[in-house]
Amino acid sequence: MLTLSLIGIGCGDPEQLTLAAIRAINAADLVLIPRKGTQKSDLAELRRTICSDVLTNKQTRIAEFDLPERDAGEADYRKGVDGWHDTVAATWSQAIAKHLGHAGRVALLIWGDPSLYDSSLRIARRLVPLPTIEVIPGITSIQALCAAHALPLNDIGEPFLVTTGRRLREGGWPDGADTVVVMLDGGTAFQSLDPEGLQIWWGAYLGMSDQIVMSGALAEIGPRIVAARQQARERHGWIMDSYILKRRA
Amino acid sequence: MLTLSLIGIGCGDPEQLTLAAIRAINAADLVLIPRKGTQKSDLAELRRTICSDVLTNKQTRIAEFDLPERDAGEADYRKGVDGWHDTVAATWSQAIAKHLGHAGRVALLIWGDPSLYDSSLRIARRLVPLPTIEVIPGITSIQALCAAHALPLNDIGEPFLVTTGRRLREGGWPDGADTVVVMLDGGTAFQSLDPEGLQIWWGAYLGMSDQIVMSGALAEIGPRIVAARQQARERHGWIMDSYILKRRA
Ligand SMILES: C[S@@+](CC[C@H](N)C(=O)[O-])C[C@H]1O[C@@H](n2cnc3c(N)ncnc32)[C@H](O)[C@@H]1O
Ligand SMILES: C[S@@+](CC[C@H](N)C(=O)[O-])C[C@H]1O[C@@H](n2cnc3c(N)ncnc32)[C@H](O)[C@@H]1O
Repeated sequence: MLTLSLIGIGCGDPEQLTLAAIRAINAADLVLIPRKGTQKSDLAELRRTICSDVLTNKQTRIAEFDLPERDAGEADYRKGVDGWHDTVAATWSQAIAKHLGHAGRVALLIWGDPSLYDSSLRIARRLVPLPTIEVIPGITSIQALCAAHALPLNDIGEPFLVTTGRRLREGGWPDGADTVVVMLDGGTAFQSLDPEGLQIWWGAYLGMSDQIVMSGALAEIGPRIVAARQQARERHGWIMDSYILKRRA
Repeated sequence: MLTLSLIGIGCGDPEQLTLAAIRAINAADLVLIPRKGTQKSDLAELRRTICSDVLTNKQTRIAEFDLPERDAGEADYRKGVDGWHDTVAATWSQAIAKHLGHAGRVALLIWGDPSLYDSSLRIARRLVPLPTIEVIPGITSIQALCAAHALPLNDIGEPFLVTTGRRLREGGWPDGADTVVVMLDGGTAFQSLDPEGLQIWWGAYLGMSDQIVMSGALAEIGPRIVAARQQARERHGWIMDSYILKRRA
């Protein structure tokens, strides 16, 4: 009856869109675009740009809806996230009922890839009745970061770990890998590490016109990244950045 | 003078191609397509299909060249890989000199994403004189695997580790993560693990017409994957597969 298409759109550059994503957008009866408050309005803007660039199907409707703010008051992190996912699922249901009804194809444009540090799949599973869920992969910020630095992510035959800023700050260098990708870092968690022997490849606003990349020995480049990040965040009002750390055995 | 464009083309489905990849292919003076022996001729075929589907620039030439076989006789693995990279770089140089000369834009179509378990970037750095290297990200097999299963890769706020079949077989469950992505597994390394409490999401020929996916409790599904993999490999003459393992705390 209802098909929900979670479409990865890449992480900033409209040219990261795949042919499958373009096809899925044009196959939709309804494209839902969330508004997340003023701060991240650039991101809603990218979704609008993408729709107007690639949408050729005159039957496809576009509808915007307001996304609730997450309740920061809930002390239990997991409980807070669970409650928020319930709320977002209810908001999706309302928007779908209002703009489409009970049957058809709904598309959501997902930042990067829907499987990577994104809650859409978990939210989609809460919809009642459960729609058919379809995932279109998209270019992740990890790939945009590696491409910007022309950096091979893994060493030959070696593993790598992907983790969050919070984990790095709380747990130090993780076990199991000499290459670590850090996402979702609200600050500069790399400062909590002993920089000796560590290299960093950092990138902010990857794929966008304001892309910034810096790399080098963490001891030397780390403080410059802290300063550049602070400045960029003040200028834009928001920042999205990620980095890769490597330690030489 | 010379620009070498390493273009991620996704891992089997021509629709995984991004707009940036299509633009880069059409910006090339020369697209080099390696022939790797009969076994993987399906893969050279996909590259040809992609070129004929998206190439609109009449000036762009396409040239095929034979890739040397890797010397399996070298006992030291790293030394073997190094020597092989040198040989491939020499082959690239010859093909470029023959079909283009010293200046212009050369494109290589890279399986998945150029930064993920791929040697092109390392080989490119050996070219003399060093060209300008440009990387266009592509959809990886990890994303194709997650999309096929509609699976969120990470648990909420949790890390994940990407590793090889060899590592898993030799080292057991790795430290540092409860989610592990396994690539480059020549066999079924998951059989070396105690399956208790483990879930698996497996996929072969992802994005291709013969795509197979299976998932479930490793204890139950593992043996079925072993059988399905064996059958599929006999039918095709080759197999490319990856999987995600999760352990519940
Ligand atoms: C909620 S996660 C979403 C990730 C996304 N699904 C993906 O595939 O990249 C947001 C995090 O992704 C990273 N990120 C996303 N877009 C980025 C960009 N354009 N530049 C740098 N980092 C980015 C940042 O680490 C950010 O904190
Ligand atoms: C040399 S690596 C190249 C990875 C590639 N650069 C990427 O981004 O996916 C080859 C490994 O990738 C995985 N792989 C690549 N294509 C695949 C496909 N279509 N289906 C399943 N696994 C695939 C397999 O684990 C295979 O052993």
